[in-house]
Amino acid sequence: MANLTPYRTLASLSLFRSRSHTHTLSAGAVHTFYTSCPRLKPTNVGNVGLAAKDTAIGEQAPEPLTLDGIKARRAKAGKLVAPTASYSDSDMFKSPQSFKAPKARRWDHLLSVESKARHPCVLKQAAKHLKKPGLISLGGGLPSAENFPIERLTFRIPKPPHFSEAGAEASGTDVTTGKYDVARGENGGVHDLSIALNYGQSIGSAQLLRWVTEHTELVCRPPYADWRCALTVGSTGALEQALRMFCDRARGDAVLTEEYSFSTALETAAPLGIRVFGVRMDEQGLLPESMDEILSTWDEAARGARKPTVLYTVPSGQNPTGATQGAQRRRDIYAVCQKHDIFIFEDEPYYFLQMQPYTGSDAPGVPPPTSAGEFLGSLIPSLVSMDVDGRVLRMDSFSKVVVPGSRLGWITASEQVVERYIRHAECASQGPSGISQLIMYKLVDESWGHEGYLQWLMNLRLEYTRRRDAILAACEKYLPREVVSWVPPAAGMFLWLKVDHTQHPEGLTRPIIEIEEEIFNSCIEKGILACRGSWFRAEPDLPLSGLFFRVTFAAASEENMGKAIERFGAAVKESFDCAD
Amino acid sequence: MANLTPYRTLASLSLFRSRSHTHTLSAGAVHTFYTSCPRLKPTNVGNVGLAAKDTAIGEQAPEPLTLDGIKARRAKAGKLVAPTASYSDSDMFKSPQSFKAPKARRWDHLLSVESKARHPCVLKQAAKHLKKPGLISLGGGLPSAENFPIERLTFRIPKPPHFSEAGAEASGTDVTTGKYDVARGENGGVHDLSIALNYGQSIGSAQLLRWVTEHTELVCRPPYADWRCALTVGSTGALEQALRMFCDRARGDAVLTEEYSFSTALETAAPLGIRVFGVRMDEQGLLPESMDEILSTWDEAARGARKPTVLYTVPSGQNPTGATQGAQRRRDIYAVCQKHDIFIFEDEPYYFLQMQPYTGSDAPGVPPPTSAGEFLGSLIPSLVSMDVDGRVLRMDSFSKVVVPGSRLGWITASEQVVERYIRHAECASQGPSGISQLIMYKLVDESWGHEGYLQWLMNLRLEYTRRRDAILAACEKYLPREVVSWVPPAAGMFLWLKVDHTQHPEGLTRPIIEIEEEIFNSCIEKGILACRGSWFRAEPDLPLSGLFFRVTFAAASEENMGKAIERFGAAVKESFDCAD
Repeated sequence: MANLTPYRTLASLSLFRSRSHTHTLSAGAVHTFYTSCPRLKPTNVGNVGLAAKDTAIGEQAPEPLTLDGIKARRAKAGKLVAPTASYSDSDMFKSPQSFKAPKARRWDHLLSVESKARHPCVLKQAAKHLKKPGLISLGGGLPSAENFPIERLTFRIPKPPHFSEAGAEASGTDVTTGKYDVARGENGGVHDLSIALNYGQSIGSAQLLRWVTEHTELVCRPPYADWRCALTVGSTGALEQALRMFCDRARGDAVLTEEYSFSTALETAAPLGIRVFGVRMDEQGLLPESMDEILSTWDEAARGARKPTVLYTVPSGQNPTGATQGAQRRRDIYAVCQKHDIFIFEDEPYYFLQMQPYTGSDAPGVPPPTSAGEFLGSLIPSLVSMDVDGRVLRMDSFSKVVVPGSRLGWITASEQVVERYIRHAECASQGPSGISQLIMYKLVDESWGHEGYLQWLMNLRLEYTRRRDAILAACEKYLPREVVSWVPPAAGMFLWLKVDHTQHPEGLTRPIIEIEEEIFNSCIEKGILACRGSWFRAEPDLPLSGLFFRVTFAAASEENMGKAIERFGAAVKESFDCAD
Repeated sequence: MANLTPYRTLASLSLFRSRSHTHTLSAGAVHTFYTSCPRLKPTNVGNVGLAAKDTAIGEQAPEPLTLDGIKARRAKAGKLVAPTASYSDSDMFKSPQSFKAPKARRWDHLLSVESKARHPCVLKQAAKHLKKPGLISLGGGLPSAENFPIERLTFRIPKPPHFSEAGAEASGTDVTTGKYDVARGENGGVHDLSIALNYGQSIGSAQLLRWVTEHTELVCRPPYADWRCALTVGSTGALEQALRMFCDRARGDAVLTEEYSFSTALETAAPLGIRVFGVRMDEQGLLPESMDEILSTWDEAARGARKPTVLYTVPSGQNPTGATQGAQRRRDIYAVCQKHDIFIFEDEPYYFLQMQPYTGSDAPGVPPPTSAGEFLGSLIPSLVSMDVDGRVLRMDSFSKVVVPGSRLGWITASEQVVERYIRHAECASQGPSGISQLIMYKLVDESWGHEGYLQWLMNLRLEYTRRRDAILAACEKYLPREVVSWVPPAAGMFLWLKVDHTQHPEGLTRPIIEIEEEIFNSCIEKGILACRGSWFRAEPDLPLSGLFFRVTFAAASEENMGKAIERFGAAVKESFDCAD
């Protein structure tokens, strides 16, 4: 029990209080969560509404957490009661066994001056008084839900496993939420518009945080006790906050990343005065030995920056190269990070876009996973799943796997890091849209559940496999193999086309970037937009090491992908004087 | 024509392209906006779908912009065509007359190092090539809409003027959006789920930006040519970005604000290393002469900060004091800002919560505005409406006037400032939730329109008037007038209760903060949560100048407000040994 996270208050700790409908509904404000902490009974259960008699969870739950384990935990816990702007954290939703490990290390020595200077909002601190029975709050300036002009919301979704658009029309479900479902016990009675349309906590609503926490435990199972999740406004916003939490302009802080890296991430770091250095890559992405060498031989004066303390990496379907780190590669990278005390930002938008192994255009495919268990077993372990130190901040996003327009994702990290993250979010985005959260909760929790969501991901896996195979077939058909080469991506949305610049008629005399520009312009002329490799250089001041183009197979139709690759091939052939 | 903003491309400038449904729908991608720029005809109208024959607007539109003027403009412009992640800006939606003024000043001398270091995203720059007819994009990693598991969304809203919940049920409208409404010409055909659920531009969707721009022109009419709007994730996020755009830790920058100020705003500035200094207030809020004195006598060494270059102010229903600056007060503040070259962050969440004049508990009320025109005429002019220099960044929010859970607001400022703001948002929040934007667009534009929305605000005005009058009646009934005083608020959600500490038995010997704490604790004991004045001090290191409590009339029922104020009165009486 030494490492058991201490029992936290169960009551809503918010200054924001559900009181909007007390004039019409007698239930009044309810400030109770069920708890998942073992052995400890709730001591403060608010006024009314605790659905289950026994809210403490027994210790018989299987290890590791399974789909059935989640169902059993929920059944035992009873209905989640989380009114307007309720306080919640992942400890309320983790399984008992997840607490049975040492805690994460502390990162005080890496945190920035800015992050250390953040204190809890004074107004939110006052919310602890809301636990007091009968207290009337004239504290928080929350509008009354009776003045919200949306009474009911319904949306049409597919029912697993009939995920196609036609399937959604034919056999889908209309999911409805009313304004006062919780008080009225309607439409599931766990979440409603009076909550979702009002202010919420920056960490996100308890309703969706529960699902995210369970999902994360199911998939990643971080091997330390005090891991937690927090909802985000998406991973660009999460990365921006994380950079500011760990990097300090005045301290001359620097970050390592793949030598070709996500351009928006680079553009996020630069204005903050954070220097970024690139690590060499192979077909599995970042090379741990290159990283070790960079760090072991770091010369602060020559580099003009402090030895890096942070690694930013996209382990699966890396943007732009499409490279995916295998399990051993991840372990090796983690070991280098331990050796040099590097904190890791693991950006995993494409984690669940891991595809079927590529067997070539003619060979028969590998049979896909047939069950949720098989599917989970097929996934390469996340860095956070091997993170005994708690030195990983993993970023998940609904953008690539459900819808980008939700602006909704989550982070997983140690309690200390998540707490700093939330203090930051409270004075920045204030957390994601409550409407987005409501819709996502209704979809992935109430309608599909964990099992249905995994089925959705399995469906997406095959969809992306199909798309990838289509673009690879086009490449094999239309590209001059003597000049253009590629590694079939195992995950993600991107194919990275390497063009052998040494074979260009002027390859030895002309700068690569000029040849790149020539081909790019020719592509536009011929009607295909591909991204130039130079746009993604971690260190744009260095000369280009190669000639690359990034193309995506996520968006265009198969027919258009074929046409576009044909045009790209023509542009390359023209530039290289290849025979047609 | 000298000051006419140059004609901008009409085509969608995004790398993100609507191609998700080309396999089912033949319409293909459409990249055309109508334009509002006078005299100039569109030169690039995309492939298909320009609804009106004449997209240029004549110059006969009345000045200033009116509701009818907007209708006429829209009718002439034809249907707005703005597919997935379309580029847009306010110039496309402003009236011709709004360009007929000098441009704003430049603020290069105030912008931070961080803000100046921001460049346009390289991927978004590439989007200019999407204009090319027939081009196939393998550029942006946007998921295909066929993989979005939401086919249709319907929500129930009230129909003006029947805004009550009962009215919404009885005579409201069910507003529906499908996935491919634009391509199919269904449900209005201007916005749909395939757009809203995909990535969008950080400035927001063209659909909602149009409404916001028109609304801003209708209400604020900034008196310089190149004003623009950008959607935000709410005003806390907008303020955080604005602070980082104009203030620099390393430069020792400082901000002025009301001596009692919104605590979250103060908590946003502090970790950024920005010093905040308080300006004295009276019942109309910030005192321009105090501000002028502070700035005129600024001693950098004594203050430990550079002379402030930014004013953060909440002109209407200030948080926490409830004070509202009158029109002349605003003009005087603006003049001081001009004198000292101060940039203004005008935070106006409560602007439309201006209430009916308070006439006392027994006197008859003042007749409310009966038309949209009367209502607009009743509003105190915004600082941005007198902003000849373009030195104001106004922050609007839907939080207090529609729903906070949308995490949706907008800023109004000069083209230069808005451009810097968007460059920043692209590497931070990436803009607000597309789902929130869709719902808000359907509500305030397609369903209510500008007139219906103004009717909604008029309804809210009376609702808040009723709430304010209820709390004031309770104060008059329950509070010891010899010790507690207040100014009836003219706007907002807050009442600021001044307790005359000099009359406390220990008022001359005990620090005010201790008496404040005693009363606060007694309040909690008796069952009322009120916010302590000390939580809102701009300069928490200075001794408290008075004893204040902030209470809100936005949330609790009338009955509960009465009970709560009675309890507050009892706590004060007890502390002050008043007769009961």
